[in-house]
Amino acid sequence: MQGCAYVNGQFAPPEEAKISVFDWGFLHSDATYDVAHVWQGRFFRLDAHLDRFFASCDALRLNPGHSRDEIRQIMHECVRRAGLRDAYVEVLCTRGQPAPGSRDPRSCTNTFMAFAIPFIWIADPDKQKRGVDLIVGSPHRIPGSSVDPRIKNYHWLDFVKGLYEAYERGGETVVLLDGQGHVTEGPGFNVFGVFDAGGGAKRLVTAASGVLEGVSRRTVIELARAAGFEVQLRPWTVAELRAADEVFLSSTGGGVIAIARLDGRAIGGRPAGTFGPVTQQLQNAYWALHEDPRYTEPV
Amino acid sequence: MQGCAYVNGQFAPPEEAKISVFDWGFLHSDATYDVAHVWQGRFFRLDAHLDRFFASCDALRLNPGHSRDEIRQIMHECVRRAGLRDAYVEVLCTRGQPAPGSRDPRSCTNTFMAFAIPFIWIADPDKQKRGVDLIVGSPHRIPGSSVDPRIKNYHWLDFVKGLYEAYERGGETVVLLDGQGHVTEGPGFNVFGVFDAGGGAKRLVTAASGVLEGVSRRTVIELARAAGFEVQLRPWTVAELRAADEVFLSSTGGGVIAIARLDGRAIGGRPAGTFGPVTQQLQNAYWALHEDPRYTEPV
Repeated sequence: MQGCAYVNGQFAPPEEAKISVFDWGFLHSDATYDVAHVWQGRFFRLDAHLDRFFASCDALRLNPGHSRDEIRQIMHECVRRAGLRDAYVEVLCTRGQPAPGSRDPRSCTNTFMAFAIPFIWIADPDKQKRGVDLIVGSPHRIPGSSVDPRIKNYHWLDFVKGLYEAYERGGETVVLLDGQGHVTEGPGFNVFGVFDAGGGAKRLVTAASGVLEGVSRRTVIELARAAGFEVQLRPWTVAELRAADEVFLSSTGGGVIAIARLDGRAIGGRPAGTFGPVTQQLQNAYWALHEDPRYTEPV
Repeated sequence: MQGCAYVNGQFAPPEEAKISVFDWGFLHSDATYDVAHVWQGRFFRLDAHLDRFFASCDALRLNPGHSRDEIRQIMHECVRRAGLRDAYVEVLCTRGQPAPGSRDPRSCTNTFMAFAIPFIWIADPDKQKRGVDLIVGSPHRIPGSSVDPRIKNYHWLDFVKGLYEAYERGGETVVLLDGQGHVTEGPGFNVFGVFDAGGGAKRLVTAASGVLEGVSRRTVIELARAAGFEVQLRPWTVAELRAADEVFLSSTGGGVIAIARLDGRAIGGRPAGTFGPVTQQLQNAYWALHEDPRYTEPV
């Protein structure tokens, strides 16, 4: 396995990136993480990922035991040692193992880990050309009143159930609704709809809450507004999603990726293998940012 | 660390019970488990735990790769090798690691693990004598429409947040409500209320749904009905919980354990260190079953 991990304060092959089953990070999924990507030798918006990682740790009362600068250096070093030009770089902090016989998380020493591995696409470049087949899954996304989705977490059994449903129904991935029928997110991505706003103008809609506030989502919102599109962050229904002229997902695992079909029906009645113009424009703008030194830093 | 684990098809010290961070069991908490206990050299209701473990695996499309008989033997052997008379014995199955670059759970080989460690009390015997201080936490328990609580799972961030709230408010553990204000469960236990049913009769109430269908919960229901108490499985509100004459929890980690105070207020106005008679009766009956060969099997 290509890559490099940082475990127990040392750089190591990814095969050594293991945690004890007695660590609450496994036993209670009591952990947070973040994933940045490196593209052609440059980290993309690393500061935004570090901001979110530290905010998530604070919210869960986890202490990664390293300063922001140290974690930045560890991430860079993982990529350098792995010799990767395009990488998926994860940092994570788990609760750790409680004192013997204890069930008190305050008795745990938190653990920090990082790894860089080859870039993982949400949809590989071939699939991206024809667009992704998305299914609306039956599980509700875990609500924010139970687990705050803005704190990046590993609670994904709702998504996993949805993924199996998607495969059975001929789809490739899944989007979940909340308990009120509003569109939330998919496994590793946010979802946007593009609508005709009259007079040739376009309006983008994406969920305001109940979702991870993705760094790619933020990038899309900024790019769309800079391009003169209206962007609405608000609850939106599955009926609106179905009626959208274009639908795309945003993710660290590939940026802006077109959805071709929703529950087997072509989005916007568009022929397979063709994208809407807004999706195409934002995809181009997203990748162009990867050469902008204001958004990137060389490994 | 005392105990014995079963990892990668071999018995090993608990320190070797580790999983890769690339296993979806960690990365997406895509796993199930069960915990049986051994008391004075005998497993308690092991068949009920095995039934539930296999049902959970089936529901999540996980294959532990061992027959029921093999898993039973592995559990026995873990306890024997650990040399424990009183043990906490966990079996677990994780999704495993997907093919490199894949995000498809169907490409994973599921992994099975087991371990026996010294018995872990939900509340140690000292604390049991004075009863547990329970707090009603603010997070809602993850709803069954997102993640089915009957499939035993590691999605516990709602409980962890609730535990920290409990500590801050002088409590020892937490019970969560659902989004409709109904009582659900706590971290590792079900909750029962005891009410006056008129004419000296007693009625027990516990949640019908939205909770793990605990083996200890089932045991309590059976024992209570055998003792002539009415038992209602139904939605119940936090107002009912506060008005109960007695409150207790049921758990593999200690059986029937009295709750002394709820949000700092003595249950049933009872003085500290004294229990209600129904709780005491069911606690005695629970431990008496541990000597009954119909419910136990020697290690």
